[in-house]
Amino acid sequence: MILSVFSDEFFMKEALKEAKQSALEDEVPVGAVVVCDNRIIARAHNLIEKLNDVTAHAEMLAITAAANYLGGKYLENCSIYITLEPCVMCAGALNHAHIGKIIWAADDPKKGFTIIGKNLLHPKTEISKGVCSHESEQLLKTFFAKKRS
Amino acid sequence: MILSVFSDEFFMKEALKEAKQSALEDEVPVGAVVVCDNRIIARAHNLIEKLNDVTAHAEMLAITAAANYLGGKYLENCSIYITLEPCVMCAGALNHAHIGKIIWAADDPKKGFTIIGKNLLHPKTEISKGVCSHESEQLLKTFFAKKRS
Repeated sequence: MILSVFSDEFFMKEALKEAKQSALEDEVPVGAVVVCDNRIIARAHNLIEKLNDVTAHAEMLAITAAANYLGGKYLENCSIYITLEPCVMCAGALNHAHIGKIIWAADDPKKGFTIIGKNLLHPKTEISKGVCSHESEQLLKTFFAKKRS
Repeated sequence: MILSVFSDEFFMKEALKEAKQSALEDEVPVGAVVVCDNRIIARAHNLIEKLNDVTAHAEMLAITAAANYLGGKYLENCSIYITLEPCVMCAGALNHAHIGKIIWAADDPKKGFTIIGKNLLHPKTEISKGVCSHESEQLLKTFFAKKRS
């Protein structure tokens, strides 16, 4: 299948590449990319263990990198593609960033922010989910199965 | 008045020193210190404007610094003193850190995490509030009054 450039699937595949990099580094595989005007301006993956820092989620690192790239701290004209539903911390950060749109792949029924409620986000932020969810779920399942074995 | 060392007031005064440093740097005055075995192991103040980063709240920087000091990412034996009630993002981060106790000075009726609910925190985290609240409120009021003038 040929992916048309600029599709949600195209950008989510890039976020999945980041997630796979996490797994290679023995981190829970979660990746994120920030897109502005159809360009990836930031990419990051979970680095909690490497940085020994519970705040080093892919989304947090991507928000910081995107703001650094843009030279402004608000991301209202950006979309973030994340391979897993954001947690409460990351939803709070995406709210502060006034992110334009959040697209995530797999739901996180245990730690996802929607357990608390969608009002954690900025009122103007759009959300979309399910893009490449199967691939992200498989990546997570494989990672945790290996951890348990 | 002489403050007995190791009191909540003593450590909150240290967090207030950090908040005052924020104000000097034209940042919203919020400060935090992390205490472990009656020692301050991390101190930080809001650096959102300086770092051009919406995630650079005092608490987030203090969590990262404390974990760095301890060489472990969990802070279950630590207390964090914060001059303002944490927001949702910071509550989420403090949850991830399994922080032992959170003590804050002033409530934040607009953006504080308790608007959402206390269940944002780790179930073992204790909370206490109101220590030096007046001093923190005055610091914030003075800052915003200056901004408007």
